[in-house]
Amino acid sequence: MSAIAIPKGETGGGLYRFPADRPLRLDSGALLSPLEIAYKTYGTLNADKSNAVLVCHALTGDQHAASPHPVTGKPGWWDRVIGPGLPLDPERYFIIATNVVGGCMGSTGPASLNPATGEPYALSFPVITIADMVRAQAMLIEALGIETLFAVVGGSMGGMQVLQWAADYPEKLFSAICIAAAARHSAQNIAFHEVGRQAIMADPDWRGGAYQRAGVRPEKGLAVARMAAHITYLSEPALQRKFGRELQRDGLSWGFDADFQVESYLRHQGASFVDRFDANSYLYITRALDYFDLAARCGGVLAECFAKARHVRFCVLSFSSDWLYSTAESRDIVRALNAAGCRASFAEIESDKGHDAFFLDEPELDSALRGFLASAADKRGLA
Amino acid sequence: MSAIAIPKGETGGGLYRFPADRPLRLDSGALLSPLEIAYKTYGTLNADKSNAVLVCHALTGDQHAASPHPVTGKPGWWDRVIGPGLPLDPERYFIIATNVVGGCMGSTGPASLNPATGEPYALSFPVITIADMVRAQAMLIEALGIETLFAVVGGSMGGMQVLQWAADYPEKLFSAICIAAAARHSAQNIAFHEVGRQAIMADPDWRGGAYQRAGVRPEKGLAVARMAAHITYLSEPALQRKFGRELQRDGLSWGFDADFQVESYLRHQGASFVDRFDANSYLYITRALDYFDLAARCGGVLAECFAKARHVRFCVLSFSSDWLYSTAESRDIVRALNAAGCRASFAEIESDKGHDAFFLDEPELDSALRGFLASAADKRGLA
Repeated sequence: MSAIAIPKGETGGGLYRFPADRPLRLDSGALLSPLEIAYKTYGTLNADKSNAVLVCHALTGDQHAASPHPVTGKPGWWDRVIGPGLPLDPERYFIIATNVVGGCMGSTGPASLNPATGEPYALSFPVITIADMVRAQAMLIEALGIETLFAVVGGSMGGMQVLQWAADYPEKLFSAICIAAAARHSAQNIAFHEVGRQAIMADPDWRGGAYQRAGVRPEKGLAVARMAAHITYLSEPALQRKFGRELQRDGLSWGFDADFQVESYLRHQGASFVDRFDANSYLYITRALDYFDLAARCGGVLAECFAKARHVRFCVLSFSSDWLYSTAESRDIVRALNAAGCRASFAEIESDKGHDAFFLDEPELDSALRGFLASAADKRGLA
Repeated sequence: MSAIAIPKGETGGGLYRFPADRPLRLDSGALLSPLEIAYKTYGTLNADKSNAVLVCHALTGDQHAASPHPVTGKPGWWDRVIGPGLPLDPERYFIIATNVVGGCMGSTGPASLNPATGEPYALSFPVITIADMVRAQAMLIEALGIETLFAVVGGSMGGMQVLQWAADYPEKLFSAICIAAAARHSAQNIAFHEVGRQAIMADPDWRGGAYQRAGVRPEKGLAVARMAAHITYLSEPALQRKFGRELQRDGLSWGFDADFQVESYLRHQGASFVDRFDANSYLYITRALDYFDLAARCGGVLAECFAKARHVRFCVLSFSSDWLYSTAESRDIVRALNAAGCRASFAEIESDKGHDAFFLDEPELDSALRGFLASAADKRGLA
C-alpha cells in the first residue's frame, strides 16, 4: 500500500506533505519538518512496479521536466528526452521528477514558512546537501510504494544526485545515468558560485535574506549571479559561433547600452531568470553543490562509495566542450566505478555546446541514452 | 627640445598636462581636453635617445610598474621584470610606464573634472578605445622628445596596446613585445566584462555613475566585478593546486561564511580591489577592451594592420593555461605578422598559472624576454 495514490496516464503529481513523524534528517544534524516535496510524473507505473525512472534536476531546474513550466509557460527542461518516442518514453516508463528540497517550485525551501516563527525561513532554513536532496527523494519514492527504481538519471547537479543515490541507496537501483557531472565541486566551481552568492548578498533588496517579509526581491543581484553562471554553461566556441562580435544595431553606441548581441543575450538570461527563481534558493542550492564531495564520506576513496552498487548498471556521459564539469571529472567517476567492480558504460560526446549540451539538441546524447536504456530494460524484463 | 624635462636616475615621472591646443582626438569623434597623463620612468635616456622602452599596463594596472603603489604600498605590478639585473634593466633602458587615459591613477578619466561642468565627468566622460590610449601615449612620448621607442611591451590589455602601436605608429617602433593578448575581444571576453559592468551598475551606490558627487562608492558591485574577472585570470589547475577544497577552519560552517579558502581568497581580491580602483574607470576600460578588434580597422584583414611594420622586431608570448587570451589567439597574431612579412618570434610558455602568469614567477617568461631584448638591443647598437 503506498501513501500516495499512484498517478496514471500522461502527467500526474502534486505536492506531498510527509506526516509530522517523518521529518527529513539533514546532514547538518537538523531535522526539517514539515517536509513537502513537489513532484511530477509522466506515464504509468506497471504492475510489478519495475518501470519507475527518477529524473533529477540541475541547479535551477525543477519537477516540470516534460510539461510546461507554470511560471514561464516554456516547455519542460528535458522535453527533448522525455516524451513519446523519445529516450524516456512515458509509454514505457513511469517517470518521476521532484523539486529538490531547498528549491522554490513547491518543495520545502527557504521561502517556505518556518513553523517555529510563522514567517518564511529565509536564512533560518538549514543548509542542505546533495545527500539531503536524495534522502527526500528516497522518502517520496517509498511513499509512492516503489521499492526499486529502474533508473535514476540526471545531468549536472542531477548527475551528482545520481552518484549519491548509488552511494546511499544502491539496493533501490537497477541502473544509473550520470551526465555532465563530477564527484566533487572543484575550486573553480566553488569560486563561480561564490561570485553569484556575493552578487545576491550585495543587493540591498536581499535584506539579509529577509526580502520576502519586506515585499521586495534582490532581482539585480540574482540576475548578475545568473549571468556569471550562464557563461560557465556554454563553451567559448559556442559563444563565438552564436554571437561572435555581432552588434545589436548598426554601429557602436559609444556608451554602455548592450552593443554586442552577447551582452543583450546575457542581460536577457539574467532578467528572465529572476521571474522564475528565488534568490535564497539559489544561495542554498549552490551551497549544497559546493559542499558536494562524495568521496569525503568514504574515507576519501571514491570507489568505496560504490562498493555496494556492483549490481547497478551505470552509464556516465560527458561533453567534450564542457568546462564546468569536464570529461576528466567523468573519467574519475568511471575509474572509481571500475575500481569498485561496477559495470559502467562511458562516452564522451563530441559537442561544442558546452555544459548545457545535456538539454540541447544533441543526437549523440539521445542515441547513447536510447542504447543504454534499451539494454537495461531488456535485462530488467521490461516490455 | 622636449616639452617635458627628461627624468634621470632610477625613478622619475609625474603628471603631464598637455597644452589646451593639444586635445586628444578620440575614435568616438570627441575631443578630450585638458588631457593629463600620469607616468613613471625608470633609468636614464641615453644620448641618442635610443634606449626608451614603453611598458603598457593591463586592465587594472597603472604607471607604478616597478615602484610601490601609492595606495596599497605593494611593489609595482611588474617588479619581477623591471629592475637591476632583470629583463628590463633601468641601468640599460629608459623605461616609461603611463596610466592609460580613462584610468584612475592620475591620467584623465571619468573621475576627472569635466571642464564644461566643473563636476567629475562620471558618465559624461567619452567612451575610449585602445587606440585612444595609444594615441595619448604617443603624445607623451613626443612630449618627452623621443622619436623612436626601442621597445613597446605589455601583457593582456598591455599587449593589445602593443599591437595598436604597431598598427598606428610603426615608424616609432624598433621592437614590440605582446604577451598573453589577442587581436580582438571574443564573445566570452565580452560576456565576462558585461557581468562585471552589470554588477557595478546594479549597486545602488553607483548612482547612475554620479557616485563621486554623492560621496559614496559602489564598492560591493565593484568587488563582485573583480571577483568574477579574477577567476578568468587564473587557471582551473592553479586554483585546484592552490586551494582545492581546503577549508578556512576545521569543518564546515553550515552557513554562508567563507568556508572554503578559495571563497576567502576571492572575497579578499574583491575587497582589496575597491581600495585602489574606480568603478567608472572599470566600466570605461572594460568597454575599450570589448571594442578592441584591430583588424576591423584594416578591412577585416589583420595582416593589413601590420603592413607598415616590416622593420619592427616582434615577440609574441602566450601561456599554455591562459583561457582568457589563449595561445590560439596569439598564433592568430603571429600568422598575421608572418603574412605581413614581419619578423616575429613566438613562444607558448608552459605554465599552469593561467593568464596572470605574465606577472608571476615564470622563469621561462624571463628568459624569453631576456633573449629577445638582448638580440634586439644588439641590433639597435645598445651597449
